[in-house]
Amino acid sequence: MIGTGLIGTSIALALRAHGAGVWLADDDPEAARLAVNLGAGEPLPEAAYADVAVIAVPPDAVAATLAGAQARGLAGSPGSAGLARCYTDVASVKQLPVAQARALGCDLSSYVPGHPLAGREKHGPAAARADLFLGRTWALCPGPETSSQAIETVTELVRACGAVPMRTDPATHDRWVALISHAPHLVAAAMAARLEGAPADALELAGQGLRDVTRIAAGDTALWTQILAANAAPVARVLTEVAADLAEAARALTDGPDGPEGAKGSKGSKGSKGSEGAKGSKSVAALLDRGQAGVTRIPGKHGGQAPEFTAIQVVIRDQPGELARLFDAAGAAGVNIEDVRIEHSPGLPVGVAELSVRPAQAGPLLNALEAEGWPVRR
Amino acid sequence: MIGTGLIGTSIALALRAHGAGVWLADDDPEAARLAVNLGAGEPLPEAAYADVAVIAVPPDAVAATLAGAQARGLAGSPGSAGLARCYTDVASVKQLPVAQARALGCDLSSYVPGHPLAGREKHGPAAARADLFLGRTWALCPGPETSSQAIETVTELVRACGAVPMRTDPATHDRWVALISHAPHLVAAAMAARLEGAPADALELAGQGLRDVTRIAAGDTALWTQILAANAAPVARVLTEVAADLAEAARALTDGPDGPEGAKGSKGSKGSKGSEGAKGSKSVAALLDRGQAGVTRIPGKHGGQAPEFTAIQVVIRDQPGELARLFDAAGAAGVNIEDVRIEHSPGLPVGVAELSVRPAQAGPLLNALEAEGWPVRR
Repeated sequence: MIGTGLIGTSIALALRAHGAGVWLADDDPEAARLAVNLGAGEPLPEAAYADVAVIAVPPDAVAATLAGAQARGLAGSPGSAGLARCYTDVASVKQLPVAQARALGCDLSSYVPGHPLAGREKHGPAAARADLFLGRTWALCPGPETSSQAIETVTELVRACGAVPMRTDPATHDRWVALISHAPHLVAAAMAARLEGAPADALELAGQGLRDVTRIAAGDTALWTQILAANAAPVARVLTEVAADLAEAARALTDGPDGPEGAKGSKGSKGSKGSEGAKGSKSVAALLDRGQAGVTRIPGKHGGQAPEFTAIQVVIRDQPGELARLFDAAGAAGVNIEDVRIEHSPGLPVGVAELSVRPAQAGPLLNALEAEGWPVRR
Repeated sequence: MIGTGLIGTSIALALRAHGAGVWLADDDPEAARLAVNLGAGEPLPEAAYADVAVIAVPPDAVAATLAGAQARGLAGSPGSAGLARCYTDVASVKQLPVAQARALGCDLSSYVPGHPLAGREKHGPAAARADLFLGRTWALCPGPETSSQAIETVTELVRACGAVPMRTDPATHDRWVALISHAPHLVAAAMAARLEGAPADALELAGQGLRDVTRIAAGDTALWTQILAANAAPVARVLTEVAADLAEAARALTDGPDGPEGAKGSKGSKGSKGSEGAKGSKSVAALLDRGQAGVTRIPGKHGGQAPEFTAIQVVIRDQPGELARLFDAAGAAGVNIEDVRIEHSPGLPVGVAELSVRPAQAGPLLNALEAEGWPVRR
């Protein structure tokens, strides 16, 4: 593992959980030491030779790190051939490191460009989690020169982390992540930037919606600046379209016959898509409809409330042991609780626990909880 | 309760949970019947007279509904004075219904314009929850004519729903919600709209970030079109600024010296805010920095991981009773678990429970769990 930030350390933890031996290295000795202390592996020894070297450094640094790793030991000990049998990286862009690796004369047969689609707003080894990649897609972009043995080894590593490998090429990969990751990051940032100068009282009104829209804007500026610069054209294309839609919506709202004045006449239009004949309103409604259609295209897995589970709500008191009693009742009924979310009620003595269970277990759980006097709602 | 959609039915459920009697009415008899069946109250009788009438209809319909409710019974029975002693509404905009109510000659002394800052992507009475307003802010915008008795009664209702009342005026309210709710809704829609024509494989790469950014775009188009039209100018102002920032970011990415070509020379710039002297990259970095600053201004409560709590991760087996044993150990140590999130590990026999506790309780909990052999990580 070269680079023990969030992603590198998480991969190391996942591999260790599989019983694999992991060596750790980082330019920042403190980051490497912290990763070792977290149980992610041992410090990289002088004479190491690994099955696979994971290069978990920022996009700009991947190719040089790969070149250095492949050259390692070549001069001193003629028998060795670099740091590892094969190499992969985890950068969020793929064309840039591949082009740079080619330019630096790296051995491309042992290099499988990769990108795990997982992350957190936090960064550094302390934020690492062995389960970060569970169920996530992990893009692999081998080129025509890449050996099948290298592809096999790296694919095995991806599966060991619990992720789902997806083969594609660097250009397609970069276009896709511009749409589903890089552009959304800047959109979140542009919305969040509006909050910088807002009155504190206005922000007291903020609900979960604003929090969700802006959450990823809390990411690492330096890393994201590099990612966005390395995928500039595809990201810019998406941003231009989003900006145009928003500018058009703003124009429609102010110029359209449905501005504050126009709207006054259209009482009781519940259920209709805006007032009939109101052009401004129509184009806003069309954007909302397109947005709705877009959201439904995102696959349901990994998302908040997994659709394959049934949610049951139970009112609980805010005191030690209350959840234990609740889960005792569920365990006694033989019901496995797949997930639980607790709604806080600051200042109130009760909260609501939302339990997710397999649909077939919802009935037995409801009966068991009701029998014990729990206030439940399905 | 006039209007038994998501908000109306949720208020009714919350009031019923407090033991209050609730009458329910809706233009759509099926929605009203469903709300009754959910236990939200009884059908509104012919000769009803309530302490407070909550008008939970779309913004455009508030004033006419208020006028109708206040006129009710005036002709037939001279002694009565409308449907209730006082009135409130729940519309997401406040200037429009107030202006319309004034124009219709409504009695403004008994009307307290209101807006609970809570909602869901789902709508209709079936999506209602008694706990929808717990800990949320609920804006109240009484005018100079509003009687203090009406304000008191409605404030009491707000507190009974578990919400925190905040007094402001209609114009300020509308400007604030444009920023923290209405504009974010269209921003989410504009981003989600880009997904409509995307390849299915690209969407397989989607992570939690994209889901969060676009989640609220799944809302009700008809209702949102009306809300946006009724708050056109303030929303348009925010959208124009967001669109300008995004267009500028797109320009900086493509025209700046940090396009794909320019970036190739800047290896190893980890930790620096973009490459020195790179104007394009600098303006993108500045937007990311402003976004980060904006996110941190959102108050921590109600949001995902509350910053005032410490998170402890525990590896758990995926079987009935496992969580009960975990919470038993916490309860025995006298530790109150404020929140818990479980990370799924499909196909693996273990998961990770992230327990949120008060910082002072983190140490005792860690010790207690370790003493019982739980694999924990702070």
